Amino acid sequence: MDIVKLLKPQTVAIIGASEKEGTFGGDICTNIKKYGKLEKTFFVNPKWESVHGKKCYRSVDEIPGDVDVVIICTPKKTVNDLLRQAGAKGCRGAVVFASGYSEVGNREGKEDEKKLIDLCQELDIALMGPNCAGFINYRDGVVGFPFISQDRDRKGNVGLVAQSGQLCLSLMESPNIKFSYVISAGNSPVITIEDYLDFLVEDADTKVVSAYFEGLHNPKKFAEVLKKAALKRKPVVVLKTGRSVKGSQIAASHTGSMSGADEVFDAVFRKFGVIRVKDMEELLAASVLFSVLDQYPAKDTFAAMNLSGGETGICADVGYLHQIKFPDFTRDTNAKLVEMLPYYATPNNPLDTTTTLSYDSDLYAKALRTVMDDPQIGMVLIGYTLLLDIADPAIYYITEAIEKVIAQGNAKPIAIIPFVENTRNQEYLDKLENLHVPILPPTNYAFSILNYLADFVNYRTEERAWELALPDTAATNLPLQALSEHASKELFKKYGVPVTREVIVTSAQEAARAAKDIGYPVVMKVESAEILHKSDMGGVMLGIRDDVAAGEAFRRIMDNARKHKPEAKVNGVLIQEMLPEGLEMILGVHNDPQFGPVVLCGLGGVFVEVFKDVSLSPAPLNSCEALAMLQSLKAFPLFNGYRGRNVLDIEALAQTIVKIARFAADHKNTLSQLDINPLMVYPKGKGVCAVDALIINRQQED
Amino acid sequence: MDIVKLLKPQTVAIIGASEKEGTFGGDICTNIKKYGKLEKTFFVNPKWESVHGKKCYRSVDEIPGDVDVVIICTPKKTVNDLLRQAGAKGCRGAVVFASGYSEVGNREGKEDEKKLIDLCQELDIALMGPNCAGFINYRDGVVGFPFISQDRDRKGNVGLVAQSGQLCLSLMESPNIKFSYVISAGNSPVITIEDYLDFLVEDADTKVVSAYFEGLHNPKKFAEVLKKAALKRKPVVVLKTGRSVKGSQIAASHTGSMSGADEVFDAVFRKFGVIRVKDMEELLAASVLFSVLDQYPAKDTFAAMNLSGGETGICADVGYLHQIKFPDFTRDTNAKLVEMLPYYATPNNPLDTTTTLSYDSDLYAKALRTVMDDPQIGMVLIGYTLLLDIADPAIYYITEAIEKVIAQGNAKPIAIIPFVENTRNQEYLDKLENLHVPILPPTNYAFSILNYLADFVNYRTEERAWELALPDTAATNLPLQALSEHASKELFKKYGVPVTREVIVTSAQEAARAAKDIGYPVVMKVESAEILHKSDMGGVMLGIRDDVAAGEAFRRIMDNARKHKPEAKVNGVLIQEMLPEGLEMILGVHNDPQFGPVVLCGLGGVFVEVFKDVSLSPAPLNSCEALAMLQSLKAFPLFNGYRGRNVLDIEALAQTIVKIARFAADHKNTLSQLDINPLMVYPKGKGVCAVDALIINRQQED
Repeated sequence: MDIVKLLKPQTVAIIGASEKEGTFGGDICTNIKKYGKLEKTFFVNPKWESVHGKKCYRSVDEIPGDVDVVIICTPKKTVNDLLRQAGAKGCRGAVVFASGYSEVGNREGKEDEKKLIDLCQELDIALMGPNCAGFINYRDGVVGFPFISQDRDRKGNVGLVAQSGQLCLSLMESPNIKFSYVISAGNSPVITIEDYLDFLVEDADTKVVSAYFEGLHNPKKFAEVLKKAALKRKPVVVLKTGRSVKGSQIAASHTGSMSGADEVFDAVFRKFGVIRVKDMEELLAASVLFSVLDQYPAKDTFAAMNLSGGETGICADVGYLHQIKFPDFTRDTNAKLVEMLPYYATPNNPLDTTTTLSYDSDLYAKALRTVMDDPQIGMVLIGYTLLLDIADPAIYYITEAIEKVIAQGNAKPIAIIPFVENTRNQEYLDKLENLHVPILPPTNYAFSILNYLADFVNYRTEERAWELALPDTAATNLPLQALSEHASKELFKKYGVPVTREVIVTSAQEAARAAKDIGYPVVMKVESAEILHKSDMGGVMLGIRDDVAAGEAFRRIMDNARKHKPEAKVNGVLIQEMLPEGLEMILGVHNDPQFGPVVLCGLGGVFVEVFKDVSLSPAPLNSCEALAMLQSLKAFPLFNGYRGRNVLDIEALAQTIVKIARFAADHKNTLSQLDINPLMVYPKGKGVCAVDALIINRQQED
Repeated sequence: MDIVKLLKPQTVAIIGASEKEGTFGGDICTNIKKYGKLEKTFFVNPKWESVHGKKCYRSVDEIPGDVDVVIICTPKKTVNDLLRQAGAKGCRGAVVFASGYSEVGNREGKEDEKKLIDLCQELDIALMGPNCAGFINYRDGVVGFPFISQDRDRKGNVGLVAQSGQLCLSLMESPNIKFSYVISAGNSPVITIEDYLDFLVEDADTKVVSAYFEGLHNPKKFAEVLKKAALKRKPVVVLKTGRSVKGSQIAASHTGSMSGADEVFDAVFRKFGVIRVKDMEELLAASVLFSVLDQYPAKDTFAAMNLSGGETGICADVGYLHQIKFPDFTRDTNAKLVEMLPYYATPNNPLDTTTTLSYDSDLYAKALRTVMDDPQIGMVLIGYTLLLDIADPAIYYITEAIEKVIAQGNAKPIAIIPFVENTRNQEYLDKLENLHVPILPPTNYAFSILNYLADFVNYRTEERAWELALPDTAATNLPLQALSEHASKELFKKYGVPVTREVIVTSAQEAARAAKDIGYPVVMKVESAEILHKSDMGGVMLGIRDDVAAGEAFRRIMDNARKHKPEAKVNGVLIQEMLPEGLEMILGVHNDPQFGPVVLCGLGGVFVEVFKDVSLSPAPLNSCEALAMLQSLKAFPLFNGYRGRNVLDIEALAQTIVKIARFAADHKNTLSQLDINPLMVYPKGKGVCAVDALIINRQQED
């Protein structure tokens, strides 16, 4: 199927064209009249001779010459016949607005959608929809979108794909975003969200890819597209709903549920440097930021220039809440600024230039250049509320100053941050955007967006493992099978994960002998794949100090096991070295049905359970990624010599995470979950050791 | 001094009046011409015969009749003479725009301000400024503000006072806020921020008090005003900068610095139910919300109605991020909604009504009424992006539906949440606000603001101790003096705080005897006010189990103390019961120079240091407040029977916090700080016990 033909057609036929307001067929014709540029657009409707003064054909067949795409505005029951007619004419693209398919959730809807898919495959028709609001290709002036909006020049470089037409419209109506494409994908079972993303990532006219979606069709293709975008350094901004499912999942608060689907998306997005935004306004603002800037900052540091102390304070505070880096200016910068500022002002970052500077474009340009040239600074923010009616001339001088500085060359990126919203002036919005200076939303949104920019700037493709261990088959409901602690550890050992020295014994005498070999004190645990909560049933004894105690412990553990679960197959008792104290970590893997094994790490106990301080990443991982996981923990200072404690063996810990991720990736089709809890982490050079371990596999069919 | 005369004058004289653009005197006259309503406004300027066609007087003396307020637009050097002239004429209010006073930070500026203060006191003139941008009294049409803005009806019920004129202007320009007063207070050494707040809290025309400030003049008055507002249930919305100082302070990460000035403000605001916002947009939006609603919700729960699944998902997600409560609808509500919704829709909260409903105002009204009448719901949110140019008729039907529901009576509060900004339509903005339906900013701001509303709704005046233990004298730089552990505990004991059983001994024999009395095992610690870090110097020995060990420990501790600090006065060795394990808390007090003793509690160690999980509240406290402090800790689940652990003695813990707060309040003039670390917390009914304690006092002058 040819998505290019669908999105960049030479000829389009509107089926169900009319002049009737409030219908798909009527409103799309109004839009085409207002801002369609494609000459070869044909109207089709047996009811009309002409629409908006243009000939209207009775059917697709009557149209002279080729038709690349049909846009079907008529009800669901007409769709399949119309597709056949179009197919017969050699048409290879179609847009279907009609709803009543799988989105309804009933059997009829699903079956109808299946038939539609089959038909498109049979006819080799690239289908947008059903249940969609079509698309606009702003580059070529192709209008296939029926919601009425204002006539305005919107041709630009943001490629938007969204599952919701309503949200497309909201974004289109915003005065400061310009598009290459707006695509309302609808159910998208034929040409999928992943296909549109791929098109936009490849498309040379699209500088920023923006997407809203609720779920995926093809995680493998999705990952490939994201990888392609990452390697091209093309920004992909995504709003994906479903975070709040997280709410209920986190409530369950055990390792498995901590890696619920939404956190897995987060982890995948992080891996590929995708900018995940929190709401529509962020989707808009981040798209505008990446679209308007003609260069991205070389580093993640900012300077802010404001006209008043109050505004400077707000920049400092809100920047701080978003962990924005405002480095101190160099001594040289400070000395130069002191010359320019009024005698009572002190140079700081964020900087209060005072209003004085804003009424002299030469002086403002000098200050801006000075701040910009500071080697500490990656990007300059100008705090200024652009009023709807310009009463204050400051923006005139500021804009002139920006022009001057850009004309001098070697300008760093600049953005404007207003302090309250709904006061943007279209004239200056355009003027500034032509200078590649975006106007952001007010501070709380602005600094959130700038933080995304900082993440984008800091993303290093060379620090990433590109492979994803996507399962070959969809998740099955096969029954699960646990391995015993010892069996689990034996497998991890093969991957180079350090585990406790231990041996299985089957009698009290053997227990005493083995314990002596390992060296007292030892730990003794029931060894069985069928007893998972060993401590709860008296299956674990710590600090066994001599032969007599070892023999006694053996008998008691076996006794407890028999009482607790008489039918359980017990391999014996595990005699295990008793490790010195260390920092206790949890290391786990959950095999996500979409993205395969996802590694989780965090400090044990309340840190995971109450503070939710965990980090996730899809397997496999390289050591940079493993280290980044650790660094992203709130508890990371505890690894790093906090308050006179030992610096821990972060290197060995990261390597162990890499090994576990490798193990999980190698077993992506069979593994359900694994846990090492605790993993003891020792001071630098002393390594780590898995104290307890568990693997749960999907039972293999014979 | 008469602030009412200043803000509600009958006659005003503009000194330095002119028609010259870009000057205080010129621009204020333009503003008066545009929207001033006060008939008795006189222009004064010896240079002109008339200004804007109105007589201009040579001096204040020449004005016939009384002048209540002079607005001095002329340079600093003219100010004092003009004030004397005004005073001589019986004028009791003045606004001074001129700058060059204390804000400059040099000696001259400070001296000039002092002279100005003295002069105003001598003349009994209520002074606004200097270095201010004046005020507008919208209720009476008094214009004393020189920044030019759009001519628009802005008369409403938000009273704004700000230290920054620039920020006043930004707010005034927003299309959806209406004011009773806008006051740019400037340096405000005569009539202070606290005075203006007091006026606005008392003012019957002001429904919401909004404030921006950087610091205070009079914490005592401030607290009194906040108490008054709290008891009246009048919303006070505050933007106070200085959070980021917190950044550097938190970095220091010890108990003392955790209660840095900004966190103290937070604690004071929380006590009085002040709505502290994060930036200007929040100040605007929160003010609008409280201003436009004609009733506040009876409970802190919300329902959201949206036109699409995408928008519903965003509401759910962003609401979740802000901990907004969206309770499930009752079975009855669900059943009714099923009847109204299309067959493929499922009723949930947030609710996707589908667009179908939005084209039928009767049906939408029915759905809105149904959702609103659900007993679980306190307030209804309608997710809808109000486009700048209305192309979509949905808002017409929605507005009509809202009208119908309100006309039926018993409507609960409603607000509109758009998904992207800068698309508000003034016509519908006005229409909806006339229906008392505010339009909020996009979701991330909207839910943040709604969370403030929830806090306001949940605030209970009866749960508050109203007294604040403000120190009688300003913080002094007196040297500090520590008390020993035992001396500190003896003082706490008098307030009913449970402490360890312990006794001071001065010989090895005594040690053994005392230890036996207390009962082995015991803890032994060096007892000295001059050795604060006892453990570090070998001054603490745990688990002493017999007489021999006790004697030996005595000798070693005394030895270590002598080696460590030969000059220290050592009272002996403390023999202390060794407590069973419990949950270890930190309880501390830091005496804030502005607001007096502030109590801090949190779990010990990394929970305070790495996770910053602490709660602060100014002393004294009642038990509701102490309990609220505990509940606000992220670690609170650990007190409350988390995962099968014991429920702890929260009651005893809260009582201990109250007692410590009482102690601190009683010693507000002498205490510098105190710490109980750890305070052991035991299961319900088993109480708490202070294991170690420290009081540091300001040394008293003889």
